[in-house]
Amino acid sequence: MSKTWVNELTEIVGEEHIQTKKSSLIAYSFDATPNFQALPDAVISPKNTDEIKQIVQICYKYNIPIIPRGSGTNLAAGTTPTQGGLVILFTRMNKILDIDEENLTITVQPGVITDTICQTVEAKGLFYPPDPSSMKISTIGGNINENSGGLRGLKYGVTKDYVLGLEVVLSNGEVIQTGGKLAKDVAGYDLTSLMVGSEGTLGIITEAILKLIPLPESKQTLLATYDSIEKAAETVSSIIANKMTPETLEFIDQPTIKAVEDFSQVGLPTNAEAVLLIEQDGPKMLAERDIAIIEQLTSQHGAINTQIAQSETEAHALREARRTALSALAKLSPTTILEDATVPRSEIATMVKAINDIAKKYNVNIATFGHAGDGNLHPTCTTDLRDKEEWERVEMAFEDIFAKAIELGGTITGEHGVGEMKSPYLEWKVGEQGLQMMKQLKHAFDPYNIMNPMKIFAKSTRKRVVVS
Amino acid sequence: MSKTWVNELTEIVGEEHIQTKKSSLIAYSFDATPNFQALPDAVISPKNTDEIKQIVQICYKYNIPIIPRGSGTNLAAGTTPTQGGLVILFTRMNKILDIDEENLTITVQPGVITDTICQTVEAKGLFYPPDPSSMKISTIGGNINENSGGLRGLKYGVTKDYVLGLEVVLSNGEVIQTGGKLAKDVAGYDLTSLMVGSEGTLGIITEAILKLIPLPESKQTLLATYDSIEKAAETVSSIIANKMTPETLEFIDQPTIKAVEDFSQVGLPTNAEAVLLIEQDGPKMLAERDIAIIEQLTSQHGAINTQIAQSETEAHALREARRTALSALAKLSPTTILEDATVPRSEIATMVKAINDIAKKYNVNIATFGHAGDGNLHPTCTTDLRDKEEWERVEMAFEDIFAKAIELGGTITGEHGVGEMKSPYLEWKVGEQGLQMMKQLKHAFDPYNIMNPMKIFAKSTRKRVVVS
Repeated sequence: MSKTWVNELTEIVGEEHIQTKKSSLIAYSFDATPNFQALPDAVISPKNTDEIKQIVQICYKYNIPIIPRGSGTNLAAGTTPTQGGLVILFTRMNKILDIDEENLTITVQPGVITDTICQTVEAKGLFYPPDPSSMKISTIGGNINENSGGLRGLKYGVTKDYVLGLEVVLSNGEVIQTGGKLAKDVAGYDLTSLMVGSEGTLGIITEAILKLIPLPESKQTLLATYDSIEKAAETVSSIIANKMTPETLEFIDQPTIKAVEDFSQVGLPTNAEAVLLIEQDGPKMLAERDIAIIEQLTSQHGAINTQIAQSETEAHALREARRTALSALAKLSPTTILEDATVPRSEIATMVKAINDIAKKYNVNIATFGHAGDGNLHPTCTTDLRDKEEWERVEMAFEDIFAKAIELGGTITGEHGVGEMKSPYLEWKVGEQGLQMMKQLKHAFDPYNIMNPMKIFAKSTRKRVVVS
Repeated sequence: MSKTWVNELTEIVGEEHIQTKKSSLIAYSFDATPNFQALPDAVISPKNTDEIKQIVQICYKYNIPIIPRGSGTNLAAGTTPTQGGLVILFTRMNKILDIDEENLTITVQPGVITDTICQTVEAKGLFYPPDPSSMKISTIGGNINENSGGLRGLKYGVTKDYVLGLEVVLSNGEVIQTGGKLAKDVAGYDLTSLMVGSEGTLGIITEAILKLIPLPESKQTLLATYDSIEKAAETVSSIIANKMTPETLEFIDQPTIKAVEDFSQVGLPTNAEAVLLIEQDGPKMLAERDIAIIEQLTSQHGAINTQIAQSETEAHALREARRTALSALAKLSPTTILEDATVPRSEIATMVKAINDIAKKYNVNIATFGHAGDGNLHPTCTTDLRDKEEWERVEMAFEDIFAKAIELGGTITGEHGVGEMKSPYLEWKVGEQGLQMMKQLKHAFDPYNIMNPMKIFAKSTRKRVVVS
């Protein structure tokens, strides 16, 4: 490959840190999203911000698309090189730079694995709460770009609630620093929050200061089993209405329970219509008190069985079983699509029922689990994309699901991002003017559209075709 | 007054809701910031979003500056009509539209008084934590535009942590809706967070959905007295290092103690060099446990006296006394300037000492109090702006304070905003490229610069002149 820009990039990082052979590029042509694939022209692994700055300047000069990529666990085709270009990897920028126990912050490079952050700070009695299911392989850079959520979101919020400051390389190769080790900062626009969740379309995050909190002293885990989805959903509402804020409040329907139990054999009740996995953390006396109250509420709302984990081993097994839901469902069929339509939490029961009706209408298999306390569901379709006729029905089903979520005051994505996959639906949520404003904002940051192009913004919005 | 645009505006709202007489305009020519004043051309009180939409369309057509104004408690000249134009008041848009106890949200118009929100939701066992000292008169619209903080920030965060969704009229008169009653939403850029703290320079907020949380069950209040500022600051560090997160952790120095005690007579120790006002909320057993631990820490770090409030009346008096600090200091002299330089909390002791040194260097009176747990201090200068020579020394002192805060990894403003007053210093914090990016962002939203012009962005950055 003799492209001038590739030669210039090679001079910056050295031959061993840039790949251009097709056999090497294929691995970076897709992420965890089925049916989206495109070859990049090159893949580069810079060692520091200064190299990234130089790389971006070259891409800016030659108008080369840049796709920053963590571990590729994205579920909305956020890291596919849609227009070719240069994939930037952060495998060499994977250091924890600083843990500040006075200011309760950790400063990291984008390539650090999320779980490494959690474990490192927990060893010091501190806590980084955002815990996407992929946390054992996902990078913090990817989490920040997608504003990842997780199981602890109800009580502790999501990634954006923990990003205090960023170093960002802009599309013109200039570097900015936002925020700092500061609990409060209102000096100008909140560029930190704007960058979080911007999916690599506004700049490249090269360093992050994250907020930590004290590690909760203990945790209680409860599994409640139901013979009806509605009763489980009612329980969720009653927990909130009773002023409880559990750390975790997960919903798992029967198809997911079966798949997870097959996969991990932790003793989930496979004949149940639904289970709720509920955890509370904090001082022991308080966590126990809350779980006792919540257990009562689950019984009052028709749980046929409740089980409080008697050991951390047991609790850990339940928690990890839930985290394997995607992997477990993925074993059932050649193709798995995991969605994350989100609704106001009061609409969880309506939404779960709607998803089931939609699955029946289009004769497709959809299992549903997710963060019920956040109204964030993961309807997951097991299918085979080689079956074109079924694939069309799957797409129509998800279109109905997005429309229903919006109708209930919800959104097309709660924590996975828009990426390329949901870009035709963004206008459904944000409206024509909202989309226009976002495009203008993108243009202000990236006038030549080299930063992860074709993500968030589609060529055109999907027209809603109602099949009756 | 026969200006065409005024006539067109009058047609929209009716004569009784637009003021153009100079005698009426003077009241809107300044806010709570000394030495900034400019007359608007007109002041308007629309009744709903649709009227605001029409008003903005007229201002867009005639290029009229628009200054949205709450109660005018801004301390950085954020609501002065620097270039004249139209002040928009929200006195007729002061309704609570919805309290949703299932989704834990409240939907409000911008003119609602912050304290009204707090009291209304507390009656339902719910909690809206942001509590700026001005909360009894400030509006929620002003709080959102400034991303206001308050005494409960250490544990509960600031306004931006509670804004879930907004309705905004853009500079071209179009209306957008952001977010929703949603715990999670990553559909496109986070325009909600971008609008919060944008000081009316990107659009006009006409409605807000705010997050509520369950009301803490109880509260404990502790006053710790010190004979040295350093010991008080060390205590702050030790509380954080011991993994305590009190609801409130306020620092008050001797000059402030004296002024507050004169003003409110609650029995503060006027001979103390500093006091810490510390509160913890939550379940009673937990709040009591934490306050007991914290009381021990205060003693270990040299508090000469500690006092736990024995009743809510006593606690309330202490809390309210702290809230009166600005009013109390304002009685001491014709002019009071309250600043809010903010540093990483580990630097509180260094910063307080630096402020005192700077006050001595320029021979000016500066009292300091503030949110020590957040690193957010309020050095407050009592002076007389008619004394030009002293005024120059005051300005040089504050310039030194900003520079010192930045040097310590801090910021020029923690919760008051940039406004017109701090705009010449913004580049010190965000850098040349950061400022440039913010200007491009402003231009994307407001190409004709009609939205609160001359705020955030100065004609030129203040050159740092070091006086030795």
